[in-house]
Amino acid sequence: MTEKAPSFGLLLFPNVTQLDLTGPYEVLARVPGARVHLLWKTLDPVRSDTGLTILPTATLAKAPPLDLILVPGGGGINALLTDEEVLTFLEERAGSTGYLAGICTGSLVLGAAGLLDGKRAGTHWASRDFLSAFGAIPVAQRVVVDGTLFTGGGVTAGIDVALRIVGDLFGEDAAKLVQLSIEYDPRPPFDAGSPAEAGERVTADLLARMTPMLEARAAAVAAGAEALRRRRAGRAE
Amino acid sequence: MTEKAPSFGLLLFPNVTQLDLTGPYEVLARVPGARVHLLWKTLDPVRSDTGLTILPTATLAKAPPLDLILVPGGGGINALLTDEEVLTFLEERAGSTGYLAGICTGSLVLGAAGLLDGKRAGTHWASRDFLSAFGAIPVAQRVVVDGTLFTGGGVTAGIDVALRIVGDLFGEDAAKLVQLSIEYDPRPPFDAGSPAEAGERVTADLLARMTPMLEARAAAVAAGAEALRRRRAGRAE
Repeated sequence: MTEKAPSFGLLLFPNVTQLDLTGPYEVLARVPGARVHLLWKTLDPVRSDTGLTILPTATLAKAPPLDLILVPGGGGINALLTDEEVLTFLEERAGSTGYLAGICTGSLVLGAAGLLDGKRAGTHWASRDFLSAFGAIPVAQRVVVDGTLFTGGGVTAGIDVALRIVGDLFGEDAAKLVQLSIEYDPRPPFDAGSPAEAGERVTADLLARMTPMLEARAAAVAAGAEALRRRRAGRAE
Repeated sequence: MTEKAPSFGLLLFPNVTQLDLTGPYEVLARVPGARVHLLWKTLDPVRSDTGLTILPTATLAKAPPLDLILVPGGGGINALLTDEEVLTFLEERAGSTGYLAGICTGSLVLGAAGLLDGKRAGTHWASRDFLSAFGAIPVAQRVVVDGTLFTGGGVTAGIDVALRIVGDLFGEDAAKLVQLSIEYDPRPPFDAGSPAEAGERVTADLLARMTPMLEARAAAVAAGAEALRRRRAGRAE
């Protein structure tokens, strides 16, 4: 992959958590010569779950050959778990795409596309239990590598995952150049990046706020897992 | 500010480094009730320095009252250092806006607007020497707080700065809720986030690649400082 300009495809869907996408985008776009494509069904502007609106650059139907497909997470993944167009795209492209990445709950979309069977995978801590519905082995790590599959924890983990991808694909020096250029020397002003650090009270408060979303996700995961089972059963007949 | 819905304004300009903006955006937008406005001269889509294209939500002329104005950095700041419309907006609004923030080289734009005189400020490590041209006191820290002025280091420092802002404005628990929701428990896979960590070879390599941009910036900073001096002299007459 180092001999030609790399081509990265990031899925951009309604109600994506934009930092799941924009963190890795910044890292990947700084690889010399890289083309980063933002892929969706149409080229209409796509609104993230906090309102920030981004323009896709290519449709799924016309996506160029890709060296990496990255799926970010966010509230909008629930709809993707049973979205035939998106899941078919991922499934069909997975074989010809060198690397797959799922950031935050984007991992679950890879799962619904049947791409996590027996694979070690990470996701946002509050959604980690959903991974097993798609046959994945949940791993509580910020960056999880299983062969050419890269997944990770919630939202900001995308920066760590993307740097790891750049390191694996182009060497440690390439990753360090990117890291230094974005001055990625994090110094969180508080210790609350995981449930263990945040403590029981803050974690319980956040989970209470997330309950409606997590309940909807549980239903979407069940539907996605059932749809995957039916697709596979249909093929086996 | 905790008694009404907070209103945050982020400057969105051509050739912005998108993660300078999207990192803080994700943090600020998760404050309950917050409105985050993306401000530019027009509502046309704005292309970042790596291609990712974002839609503004309000023009400078029609920006609502704001509790915070945040200026991200990137190659595009060079043009802003002598941009009368932008600098006048910042200067006129500064008095009625509770908090100002400059992320990465966005600090230099605040400087060109005459808002850093005698203030402690940070910016991207490779542009730190430019701060003094605008009367600021350069500080080599990831998050720099001087009264109601928040600045910081390069690109990814915006996440740390924004969490600090949320903590100062809404209390530590509010910041911790956001931090846990975005699982901000960074684990960089390499140690290269600062010149000291990256080492001489990687730092020299990056600086060599940045030389044309830094030379253009030096000229833009000189022009911006001269324009600021002339505006002030004009008023003093």
